[in-house]
Amino acid sequence: MSGRLVVVGGDAAGMSAASQARRMDRDLEIVAFERSGYGSYSACGEPYYVAGIVDSIERLVARTPERFAHMGIDLRTRHEVEAIDLDRRLVRVADLEGGSRFEMPWDQLMVSTGAHPLRPASIAGIDLPGVLALRTLEDAVTLRAMTEHEAERVVVVGAGYIGLEMAEALAGRGAHVTIVTLGPHVLEKTLDPEMGRIVDDAVRDAGVELLTDTTVDRIVGDVKATGVAAGDALVPADLVFLGLGTAPDVALAEAAGIPLGVTGAIAVDDRQRTRVEGVWSAGDCAETVHRVNGQAVNIHLGTIANKTGRIAGTNIGGGDARFPGVLGTAIVKVFDLEVACTGLNTAQSAASGFDPVVGIAKGRAGASYWPDAAGMVVSVIADRVTGRVLGGQVVGGEGTGKRIDALATAIWKEATLDDLAWADLAYAPPFTGVWDLINIASRNAADP
Amino acid sequence: MSGRLVVVGGDAAGMSAASQARRMDRDLEIVAFERSGYGSYSACGEPYYVAGIVDSIERLVARTPERFAHMGIDLRTRHEVEAIDLDRRLVRVADLEGGSRFEMPWDQLMVSTGAHPLRPASIAGIDLPGVLALRTLEDAVTLRAMTEHEAERVVVVGAGYIGLEMAEALAGRGAHVTIVTLGPHVLEKTLDPEMGRIVDDAVRDAGVELLTDTTVDRIVGDVKATGVAAGDALVPADLVFLGLGTAPDVALAEAAGIPLGVTGAIAVDDRQRTRVEGVWSAGDCAETVHRVNGQAVNIHLGTIANKTGRIAGTNIGGGDARFPGVLGTAIVKVFDLEVACTGLNTAQSAASGFDPVVGIAKGRAGASYWPDAAGMVVSVIADRVTGRVLGGQVVGGEGTGKRIDALATAIWKEATLDDLAWADLAYAPPFTGVWDLINIASRNAADP
Repeated sequence: MSGRLVVVGGDAAGMSAASQARRMDRDLEIVAFERSGYGSYSACGEPYYVAGIVDSIERLVARTPERFAHMGIDLRTRHEVEAIDLDRRLVRVADLEGGSRFEMPWDQLMVSTGAHPLRPASIAGIDLPGVLALRTLEDAVTLRAMTEHEAERVVVVGAGYIGLEMAEALAGRGAHVTIVTLGPHVLEKTLDPEMGRIVDDAVRDAGVELLTDTTVDRIVGDVKATGVAAGDALVPADLVFLGLGTAPDVALAEAAGIPLGVTGAIAVDDRQRTRVEGVWSAGDCAETVHRVNGQAVNIHLGTIANKTGRIAGTNIGGGDARFPGVLGTAIVKVFDLEVACTGLNTAQSAASGFDPVVGIAKGRAGASYWPDAAGMVVSVIADRVTGRVLGGQVVGGEGTGKRIDALATAIWKEATLDDLAWADLAYAPPFTGVWDLINIASRNAADP
Repeated sequence: MSGRLVVVGGDAAGMSAASQARRMDRDLEIVAFERSGYGSYSACGEPYYVAGIVDSIERLVARTPERFAHMGIDLRTRHEVEAIDLDRRLVRVADLEGGSRFEMPWDQLMVSTGAHPLRPASIAGIDLPGVLALRTLEDAVTLRAMTEHEAERVVVVGAGYIGLEMAEALAGRGAHVTIVTLGPHVLEKTLDPEMGRIVDDAVRDAGVELLTDTTVDRIVGDVKATGVAAGDALVPADLVFLGLGTAPDVALAEAAGIPLGVTGAIAVDDRQRTRVEGVWSAGDCAETVHRVNGQAVNIHLGTIANKTGRIAGTNIGGGDARFPGVLGTAIVKVFDLEVACTGLNTAQSAASGFDPVVGIAKGRAGASYWPDAAGMVVSVIADRVTGRVLGGQVVGGEGTGKRIDALATAIWKEATLDDLAWADLAYAPPFTGVWDLINIASRNAADP
């Protein structure tokens, strides 16, 4: 149909959509507005820039505005869309550098406003200087600068993916790190307790103080944060990092009247269409469907943002693509461990109406006689009645985490425990025992 | 039904069957005869004993006769079954140590005679001393002893799994190694040419001489092998290692009148029953079914031996288990590379009546900005008409090989390219790009 596509938010989902729409339709005019100074960046890489593993912030930019210009995509950074007008089919934009404001009409609109870190107002002192979170590359630059100067003692609040990655990054920078989490173990939203506790041990073994089951009551300090009141303790801190999760950035959409779904994110169909004609959404701000329980979910992962963005772009460009949903598959490096999960955990399975049974297999990523094989633990969660595999988790040493993909693929194809107990998985002594731990965990779940 | 089970061949399949039959039936009498000095050993570990990575040969023994005795299983090593009498339902056994011969009646018989390395009589000089292959632990001991003394120049004939593992083992022992293979690249029976040539380069980079498309005309030497006439060259050798593949050991079964199948291995149904009542077979000597083309195959892998052995044992013990077939999934470490495959390769797909299309994705096991991420290449083979995934291959650096299991699981569940192009696989910067190479290879195959 061509005309003009306006993209609101120029990161993973937005620029995936723009790029794919361009591939589909050479005549479409594409303008993308990004509030921060960088578009198309890897938010997932930010902890590694803070850690110093990635040397320059520019390396986290997948494509520069110049490269997009070469593709015929007008990406304008430091431009904030302040309002979406559905009646007049335009956006109102502030040029944060130049200071001007203007309107830009669209024929199709892509809302890819992402998600922002939670800063619960219920925690007193949360707006003090020195209480930081991570969203944009600029945030990463600020955090890295602090690690080079003032941040000797750090409290990380929350023990999700970002909290753990930042704890490792900051500890690697020489800071004394304390993690405070309300959960009974780290990664409590994704891992079952038995798996989570293995990660707890690794975090503590790495010299990080970990306070589980602990509420952050307030952040103390006069002109800046100097400590965290957590449970009975007052933990001193030069820097407080908030890893309390993220919420979809839907203020613009909501103000415009673009309907949200049950999760609070923007409601979309499997073509990434919102309920407003010509308006699309994808990425962290949009809902998607969990393939295991069929429920609407809003999971903030780069994989989902890129995939849903690409689906939107195909459809914007006149094609017909449908997004098949997600499993929430994720992986995180936590010091010497690789931690991965897919599908539903046991609690989520029960909450979804399944009768979950769990099989666990502990072993090594190598034959029994293979020297120095990494340890690993695999869990498989299934429905007791049907045997359908609902979820799985892997915790292990180097080279083990991506083995989750076999479980993800199994769940993607609605495999049963019987499928996985006998699945023909690869074996040689440097890699696994002759019965893969996925085979064994599945057998254990089938015959607990 | 109890009575007595006699097991002919006490390695992976035989002892898996014995152990599982014992779990199922406490009253069954179980006697296993093993010709070599060790039962229940890891043949797959032998190259690593030769390499010196595994220090003692005993470490390759999964369970000793004493441990089997403790389970009520009478494993007799150095006992060769010389004949199976189906009419009188007994075996004739030679005690290779004591020198006596005796008969042992059975109510059920497990034929798990394995496979032996090929020694084609068409190659003159193949029976010279110094021309060795690898089957039993004793063979591994002999080979390791030779590497410590006389074997400075080694020719490996054949470039399959064992040939490559032994080339690496012997090179690691300081030998100058030449591989001679008739194939156009290494692993020619499993890998597609584009993938195989990557492995060729790694082999050569490791200092091994690799002669592809080269016939071994004869092995030269008077009292022992001193060289190999290969194509135009005479390659000097203190040791010639035969890695020309293996053939099922069916002489006993054939002599007894137990029917073989089209592959030349023992015909069995999915319960591992031969066509003779009360006689079972599993492991390298038995046929199985390839799940992709439904054809009878005879693939010699430890995984298949253990799984089919366990199925046989369940059924021998009065249970009801059915073997679901194989994909031929395999993995091998080749110097710094991990090489894995599953399902059919392109040539096998075409020979099976499919119209194969191949997608290849080259990248890294890490985000573009992740320092020192291992390189890896993934190929996905599918049927052009239906999109069904038929096979896949992975060649890459450390930690990449077991990613084949996602492809194996996909094929196990009859996934299509569209399934895999969007499958929710795990992503974080230390592990992969945001689009997994499996996603990309599948997309490339779908849209070549």
